[in-house]
Amino acid sequence: MHEADFIDHLRTIATHSAARGLMDDAAVLDVGGTALVLTHDMLVEGVHFLPDDAPADIAWKLVAVNMSDLAAKGAAPLAVLMGAGLARDTTWSRAFVDGLGLALDHFGAALVGGDTVTMPAAAPVTLGLTAIGLAPPGGAPSRGGAQPGDDLWVTGTIGDAGLGLAARLGQIAGAPEALVRAYTRPHPNLPLGRALAAHVTAMADVSDGLLLDTQRIATASGIGIAVDIDAIPLSDAWHSVRGNSVADRIAAATMGDDYQLLFTATPGSAPAIAALAAAHGAAIARIGECQAGSGLSATSGGKPVTLPARLGYLH
Amino acid sequence: MHEADFIDHLRTIATHSAARGLMDDAAVLDVGGTALVLTHDMLVEGVHFLPDDAPADIAWKLVAVNMSDLAAKGAAPLAVLMGAGLARDTTWSRAFVDGLGLALDHFGAALVGGDTVTMPAAAPVTLGLTAIGLAPPGGAPSRGGAQPGDDLWVTGTIGDAGLGLAARLGQIAGAPEALVRAYTRPHPNLPLGRALAAHVTAMADVSDGLLLDTQRIATASGIGIAVDIDAIPLSDAWHSVRGNSVADRIAAATMGDDYQLLFTATPGSAPAIAALAAAHGAAIARIGECQAGSGLSATSGGKPVTLPARLGYLH
Repeated sequence: MHEADFIDHLRTIATHSAARGLMDDAAVLDVGGTALVLTHDMLVEGVHFLPDDAPADIAWKLVAVNMSDLAAKGAAPLAVLMGAGLARDTTWSRAFVDGLGLALDHFGAALVGGDTVTMPAAAPVTLGLTAIGLAPPGGAPSRGGAQPGDDLWVTGTIGDAGLGLAARLGQIAGAPEALVRAYTRPHPNLPLGRALAAHVTAMADVSDGLLLDTQRIATASGIGIAVDIDAIPLSDAWHSVRGNSVADRIAAATMGDDYQLLFTATPGSAPAIAALAAAHGAAIARIGECQAGSGLSATSGGKPVTLPARLGYLH
Repeated sequence: MHEADFIDHLRTIATHSAARGLMDDAAVLDVGGTALVLTHDMLVEGVHFLPDDAPADIAWKLVAVNMSDLAAKGAAPLAVLMGAGLARDTTWSRAFVDGLGLALDHFGAALVGGDTVTMPAAAPVTLGLTAIGLAPPGGAPSRGGAQPGDDLWVTGTIGDAGLGLAARLGQIAGAPEALVRAYTRPHPNLPLGRALAAHVTAMADVSDGLLLDTQRIATASGIGIAVDIDAIPLSDAWHSVRGNSVADRIAAATMGDDYQLLFTATPGSAPAIAALAAAHGAAIARIGECQAGSGLSATSGGKPVTLPARLGYLH
């Protein structure tokens, strides 16, 4: 069964408002007047990480991908529970736990529980993490609040992790270490997400590809979004191994694993947003515009660009 | 790496008080003055369920094993997040989701989020569920509060699910359907757990074997517990296929998958406990006594019984 079909079917039973129609990065559950942000992301060997990735890197990524969901909802992390399906030896497992501790310390989340299972022979290492955070005072932004006329923004640079994965797979040679680290050690910006939450109309993280995640905001908001391909921020490390053509830029925007913040805001919020990004030491770029209508469109040099059928990476 | 070693190492990083030293059925996290009970249990094909178990039964069990943890802490279920590593076709997946919806409705928990991954070829179906509940007004009982002189109690009957699994594996013939249903459809008693919470000194669920889970209460409480093997409650269905010897009774008490409530209470609480069980239509049995010292001991007919090295089922 295709994941999308499975999730469509899950939506028929996930009718509680906290589920947000399974259309958001996280659930938002009110408990005694406190809004909790809840997310659960899995990492599976051979799907999300390579068998020879360092166990501490895998632990980092398990925490980071869930923290990225919290960041996109402006949430402050509280606690995590881990489900660990193990298929490795003691050395691997100890390095994994040590790395997990460092990652949780870095992001300020406490391990409070979970489950551990020894997987059957030859099964992949299968990890799940549930992260629980506190919503920001003004409420957790959704993907569905963008309005025609809003700007589309993204933090950091796009495509680095995708090139890092290509380097790890031996598909490109001479890649700077920065690209591999973007793949192995994503750094979602929780404080910036929390600061931005009051200024955005919609927010998500870029996990499956900039264009795919932008399309999801457009769909959830019931609007169209036009992306300026020329404005997609690429790093010096990117440019050291790949070009700057429209095709290259679209490649960057469909790779995924960026764990940057993607959000919409009214043009009047631009000065406040720029100031917050500067205060948090984060690069930020205005990369598009929300429009009446529906769907994703793109331009380069002011002219329409045809987008590929595959807008991102679906696990 | 043996799971116990992995969990021991996890304890070195799980230092937040909400984790309860990873010694309890669930975490108890205070959020804005509200005590949340959090648990995460996994089910893996070939470890916790059989490849040809019905998908709706697997979904039921995924929900039930987590609800059992909430019941043991006296918690009222609020919401769940599911991590689903799928390896089956559309028919299987649809039946699974339909069963999941029925199970969640039965226990009163809302699906609010999660993650779905298509597993690599030949990998087992791997499921994780995080359940979130509200602690009872007086606080969630731990495994660590039993005192010398307390009685040890258990609800329902023990060993039925173990025989049901044996029947499913073809190891015993002519088993009543009730045994198979005890394996495929455990029914943790959430209302009774919630009602008992104020009367117990320690409480856990029986998931890995009555004797093993009793030993864990003894260890967490820093006391000894003497179990009266003759008092372990066995069902008519059990007696239709197995005997009543001490060895048979010990077998029942080491099988696991019972999802009954196991708890300690002062002798003075016995009338209130009996009344609550009756009000909830639940069988209840006093099966032992807490003592000064440490460890698990057992008697039959007033004489000491030697316990096996393996006190339960460790996945």
